[in-house]
Amino acid sequence: VLVDNGDLTIGFDVGGTSVRAALVAPQRGTVGPVIDDVREGDVLEQLAATYTRLTDAAALRPVQVLAAGVAIPGSLDRRTGLIASAPTSLELVGLDPGTIRLGTVGTVRFVNDANAALHAEQEHGAARGARDVVGIFVGTGVGGGAVVGGRLLIGSVGVAGEIGHMVIAPDGPCCPCGGQGCLEQLASGTAIARRYRQRTGRDVDGARDVALAARAGDSCAIEAFHRAARYLGVAVATLANLMNPEVVVVGGGVAAAWDLFGEDLTRTAMHHTMPLAARGLRIVPAALGRLSGVIGAALLASSPSG
Amino acid sequence: VLVDNGDLTIGFDVGGTSVRAALVAPQRGTVGPVIDDVREGDVLEQLAATYTRLTDAAALRPVQVLAAGVAIPGSLDRRTGLIASAPTSLELVGLDPGTIRLGTVGTVRFVNDANAALHAEQEHGAARGARDVVGIFVGTGVGGGAVVGGRLLIGSVGVAGEIGHMVIAPDGPCCPCGGQGCLEQLASGTAIARRYRQRTGRDVDGARDVALAARAGDSCAIEAFHRAARYLGVAVATLANLMNPEVVVVGGGVAAAWDLFGEDLTRTAMHHTMPLAARGLRIVPAALGRLSGVIGAALLASSPSG
Repeated sequence: VLVDNGDLTIGFDVGGTSVRAALVAPQRGTVGPVIDDVREGDVLEQLAATYTRLTDAAALRPVQVLAAGVAIPGSLDRRTGLIASAPTSLELVGLDPGTIRLGTVGTVRFVNDANAALHAEQEHGAARGARDVVGIFVGTGVGGGAVVGGRLLIGSVGVAGEIGHMVIAPDGPCCPCGGQGCLEQLASGTAIARRYRQRTGRDVDGARDVALAARAGDSCAIEAFHRAARYLGVAVATLANLMNPEVVVVGGGVAAAWDLFGEDLTRTAMHHTMPLAARGLRIVPAALGRLSGVIGAALLASSPSG
Repeated sequence: VLVDNGDLTIGFDVGGTSVRAALVAPQRGTVGPVIDDVREGDVLEQLAATYTRLTDAAALRPVQVLAAGVAIPGSLDRRTGLIASAPTSLELVGLDPGTIRLGTVGTVRFVNDANAALHAEQEHGAARGARDVVGIFVGTGVGGGAVVGGRLLIGSVGVAGEIGHMVIAPDGPCCPCGGQGCLEQLASGTAIARRYRQRTGRDVDGARDVALAARAGDSCAIEAFHRAARYLGVAVATLANLMNPEVVVVGGGVAAAWDLFGEDLTRTAMHHTMPLAARGLRIVPAALGRLSGVIGAALLASSPSG
C-alpha cells in the first residue's frame, strides 16, 4: 500500500509526445502506480482519464487526492499561475488550472517541467540536502532550473532558469526562442542528432540512435556527444561562477548516455570554473530518471508556496 | 546634520588603489562626510585613521557608530565571514573582522564590493523597489552580483555572483582566475584599454583615456567600447534568460562612459534575450556612482542577516 492517510498528490508530466502520471506521497517521496502513455487527443481529456485510471489502480477513494501538479515544458507567469508560453501545449496557454476537473481534487497547479524535475532531485534524488543546486535537463531541448539558498529561482515574471537559452555561441545558430547561439541549439538531443546527420549523411531518429552508434565505436557519433558535452561544460562553468551551487544535476533523456558525455562535460566545466566555486562542487547525473518531473509536479502542487 | 540619533554605520570601500569611506544613516540612505583617499601603507592603520577623521568631521561621539562594513574586491566565505580570496588585499585574507579596532564600533563585517554596490543600488539607487536585480560593475575588472526574490545571491560557499567570470568566449584569453574566456578578459576597463593599444599602438593609461579619444571621434577607441559592449550584452542576455531580473544595473568606473556603450550593450542583450524575459526588463546605468560600494557596505553591516 502506498499510503494509509489522506496526504496524497498526483503529478503529471505533459511532454510533447508523452503523458506520465503518478500518485505521490509528498512527505515520504514514495510513488504509487505510474502511468506512461503516448500523448493523444485532447490533453485535458487525457489528464482526466489518467486521473481515473490512477485512482482506480490504487483503489483509492478519490477524496484522498488533495492536489495535482501538471508539469509542462513551458514558461509560467508566477503572478498568475498561468502558462505564458508552451510550444508543445498551446491549448494550455492562458488556461486557469482551477477549471481543470480531476475528480474531487481541490488544487490543480501548473509547473515548469525542468523546475519540477529539479525540485524532485533536490528533495529525493541526486541533490538531496543541498540548498544551492542547478539542474540541467537534456532531452529534445535543454531545460533547467536553479535552487538558490533553498528556494527555487523564479524571476520577476516567473521565467527564470532558462539554462537552455544561455548564450554560448553568440554568432551560432538562431533559436526559435528569438535569440541566437543558445545552448539548446548546440547541446540538446536534437542538436546531437543533427550534428551526426551533418557529419555522416546518415539518418538517425534522435540522440538515442547516436548513442547506440557511439557505443558500437562510431567515431562521428562519439564526437557528436563530446561536442555537446563541451558546450554543456562551458554552461556549467558559467553557472558555477554565477551561482556557486553545491551540486549540478544533469538529467533528461540524454542523461542516460552519461557514460558518453559526463567526463568531457565535467573536465570542460572544471577548466572554466573558478577555484573557489569549484571547491566541493559535484556534477552528477540525475537519480530519479523519467519520474523526476512527475514527482516534482506532485511535490510542488502540495507545497504551500508553490 | 546627518543624524540626530544613534543609528549610524560606516562604510569602507577598499579598492586596489583607493580607500573610500562615509558615514551612512541606513534607514534613510543619507550619507555624511565622505573621504576618498589614495590607498597607502598598512590597510588596517588606514581604516583606523579614516574612521577617526570621519567621526571628527561629523563631530560625533564615537559611540554613535554602531557598525562598520568593509567592501573589498574579493570572495567571502559566508560560513565564516572571512575573506577567502582578495588579489588586491592579501593582508585581509583570513583575518577575523572582529579583531579590527575602530573606536567603539561593535560590529565590523567584510562584504564583497560588487554585492555591496548592488545592494546600495537596490535600496537607494537605480534598482530601488525591485526584487530581482542583476548588477554588473565594470572597472579595472568586472564585478557583479544578483538579488533574487529580494535576497542577495550568495551561493553554497558564498562566492556566487561572479559575473566577470561568466565564460563568454571559451577559446578566448586565459584569466588569472584559472579559467579561460571570462567576461572580465573581454569587457573590463583593462580589456578596453588593451584592445585600443593593440589596434593603434598608442599607449593609454586606462579606459578613461580611451573614452576621451572616443569622444574626440577616434574610431578605434569607439570600436574598443562597442566590442566590450557586445560581450557585456551577451552576458546580460544569458543573465536575463537565467535569472529573469526586472532590472540590470550597469555600474563601476567605466559606466561613466555609458553614452559610449550603453546602446550597443542593450541592443545585443535584447537580440539574445527570450521575449518573455525581455518583457519589462530595464537595463540602466547605476545611480550612486563611486559611493555605491561605501553605502552598500554600511547597509550590509547594519542588516541583521548580513
